Amino acid sequence: MTIDPESILKDVELIRDKAPLVHNITNYVVMNNTANALLSIGASPVMAHAVPEVEEMTGIAGALVLNIGTLSDTWIEAMFKAAKKAKSRQIPIVIDPVGVGATQYRTRTARELIQASAPSIIRGNGSEIMALCEQDITTKGVDSTSGSDLAIDSATALAREFDCVVCVTGKIDYIVSSQAIIQVKNGHAMMPRVTGLGCTATALCGAFAAINPDYDKAAAHTMAVMGIAGEMAAQKAQGPGTFQVNFIDALYQLSEIHSREFFKT
Amino acid sequence: MTIDPESILKDVELIRDKAPLVHNITNYVVMNNTANALLSIGASPVMAHAVPEVEEMTGIAGALVLNIGTLSDTWIEAMFKAAKKAKSRQIPIVIDPVGVGATQYRTRTARELIQASAPSIIRGNGSEIMALCEQDITTKGVDSTSGSDLAIDSATALAREFDCVVCVTGKIDYIVSSQAIIQVKNGHAMMPRVTGLGCTATALCGAFAAINPDYDKAAAHTMAVMGIAGEMAAQKAQGPGTFQVNFIDALYQLSEIHSREFFKT
Amino acid sequence: MTIDPESILKDVELIRDKAPLVHNITNYVVMNNTANALLSIGASPVMAHAVPEVEEMTGIAGALVLNIGTLSDTWIEAMFKAAKKAKSRQIPIVIDPVGVGATQYRTRTARELIQASAPSIIRGNGSEIMALCEQDITTKGVDSTSGSDLAIDSATALAREFDCVVCVTGKIDYIVSSQAIIQVKNGHAMMPRVTGLGCTATALCGAFAAINPDYDKAAAHTMAVMGIAGEMAAQKAQGPGTFQVNFIDALYQLSEIHSREFFKT
Repeated sequence: MTIDPESILKDVELIRDKAPLVHNITNYVVMNNTANALLSIGASPVMAHAVPEVEEMTGIAGALVLNIGTLSDTWIEAMFKAAKKAKSRQIPIVIDPVGVGATQYRTRTARELIQASAPSIIRGNGSEIMALCEQDITTKGVDSTSGSDLAIDSATALAREFDCVVCVTGKIDYIVSSQAIIQVKNGHAMMPRVTGLGCTATALCGAFAAINPDYDKAAAHTMAVMGIAGEMAAQKAQGPGTFQVNFIDALYQLSEIHSREFFKT
Repeated sequence: MTIDPESILKDVELIRDKAPLVHNITNYVVMNNTANALLSIGASPVMAHAVPEVEEMTGIAGALVLNIGTLSDTWIEAMFKAAKKAKSRQIPIVIDPVGVGATQYRTRTARELIQASAPSIIRGNGSEIMALCEQDITTKGVDSTSGSDLAIDSATALAREFDCVVCVTGKIDYIVSSQAIIQVKNGHAMMPRVTGLGCTATALCGAFAAINPDYDKAAAHTMAVMGIAGEMAAQKAQGPGTFQVNFIDALYQLSEIHSREFFKT
Repeated sequence: MTIDPESILKDVELIRDKAPLVHNITNYVVMNNTANALLSIGASPVMAHAVPEVEEMTGIAGALVLNIGTLSDTWIEAMFKAAKKAKSRQIPIVIDPVGVGATQYRTRTARELIQASAPSIIRGNGSEIMALCEQDITTKGVDSTSGSDLAIDSATALAREFDCVVCVTGKIDYIVSSQAIIQVKNGHAMMPRVTGLGCTATALCGAFAAINPDYDKAAAHTMAVMGIAGEMAAQKAQGPGTFQVNFIDALYQLSEIHSREFFKT
């Protein structure tokens, strides 16, 4: 399976045309940026976390994004209610297991959410994906010695167990499903110095999955758009502050010209 | 009733001179931007939502702004307590019914807040203002066929019922009271692509109402300032990211020269 | 005790090299900016406030930052738990008593937190530091007539009582300990027009204290870096919006050249 500049932009155009409503239950740190990224790409973000309203909000959304970055008990309750509703409506659910592995609370919550919701896409960095995986991947083979290989093995195990797409983002992004592994090689070294760009990637997965039911491609297109926008932003940025702002601009400006010029797989 | 570049700037100068304290109980998505917009125009923002302290905080404020964007039960409790205190002190209350109509929880909360607090100003987009209105506006007359007309009819009904000013913001902003309807035609097409500019408009209403007891004019001046700052920002922006940043700058830079050059009514 | 451009940059380089994990339990308004400031200087921020996980998160951190800007009961509970853990691990605790004096809830919480946690550094503006101090400083002497003098007297009393460093930030920053008072004269008039730069200063104290156990110097270096970055940002800013963005860039760009050019004591 491959993606290309045309297929990437076709999905971007679909988002701009349909403006899918993406319901985010996400963390406090990134809410403003996540909303702006979704608006800039052409989607319609909504943030709502109150237990009495999440089902109704998910009921009108095109995708549900769950991000455990600053979780607490009532937010977890809302995530499960929203996930149940999304599942019943068969809209895509995207999960970002922020900081999983750092505390038992995160690890347990992320695993239970994945079990209960059967997400379409899980996106995390290598260590998060490894922490999610309950199987003892490290003993699977002598070849799995690098962190990156272990993360891909973990992603493969998760993708099989939950029949979902798992994105392992880093210098190279790996989009792993039971069918294939797609690599995206876009991006810029300044991206890890801007808070919440991983969370933005997850939220954009929601927008792409809302308009493309082929979730491997939706996820791969998202990662390509993130990386391309990152490279566009880097051309104007003088540090992480201007990078963050120019990145939002880039999502808005993104055209097939940029996609053709920058896309690397 | 009319407003003009001089009356707009007179209020801006008053805010810069008096730096009114605006107490915001608002949503997580926009808090940073709201605080920055209030600081840039010259006001003093405070965000505080804890039930044990909201009355005391409202007790020292010049205006109270209630925004239900990411509401939950304890925040609603705080909003009612703060509103009661503001009412007893006769300081202006401004309400932003974000997303009303999307869920029953929002619709019920917004209506109850308005009933209980007797706000000075309500600000929302057309669909929010229509959703707030419990009267069956759609059957009022055959002329009310466009969304915009329906929104203005709803605003008029709300303004009469609660003796308050209702701002319906959009391509043209309508500032509706029992006395008059003022139109403001400033603004820029990129504004809906930046998260929370509606919330910023509501928060700035708090600052203007704190220094101008003529709430029609306070609201109309706010909408003019929002639109003028939006046009100023658009001259420097290359997308929603740089727009957001330049918008804050514009509130800071705004002078009678800009007001004269840009103001459209 | 003095600080100089070389000692300032030596600490910055240590942060860039070691990337200390700074655990923030802070307010909603500034979370994004605080995280970006910590990332730009080279530290690793984490925001986590859930009672079930804060001890574990503090358990892997190099410093704990407690900021009461938008406090509520469950967040206070989390702050006390995290502080206890930090104390047991002897990692630095930095406290920002945002808005203390404005409500009894804030004043009581800040004082109790300081009592319980024995912080390494407290940072606030003059009125906050005066409000923290339970001693009747105003009657101490006829010379203490200016607000600034009263704040320094309060800081000195607090520094002695709790054996900690107290930063009083303003036009001139005073870093007060039982040993000495260091002055830092950097900064820019636009800084109070950007929300949360005080909170950023507090968070950066966490990063500096994590790599420099001499907390007077860690705090003084932080204030110098804040002021220098502010002056660097001001050279490119046209208002508070571009200032905020360029300030983050400046933390990333900061080199000994800037430190030598700008530092004023």
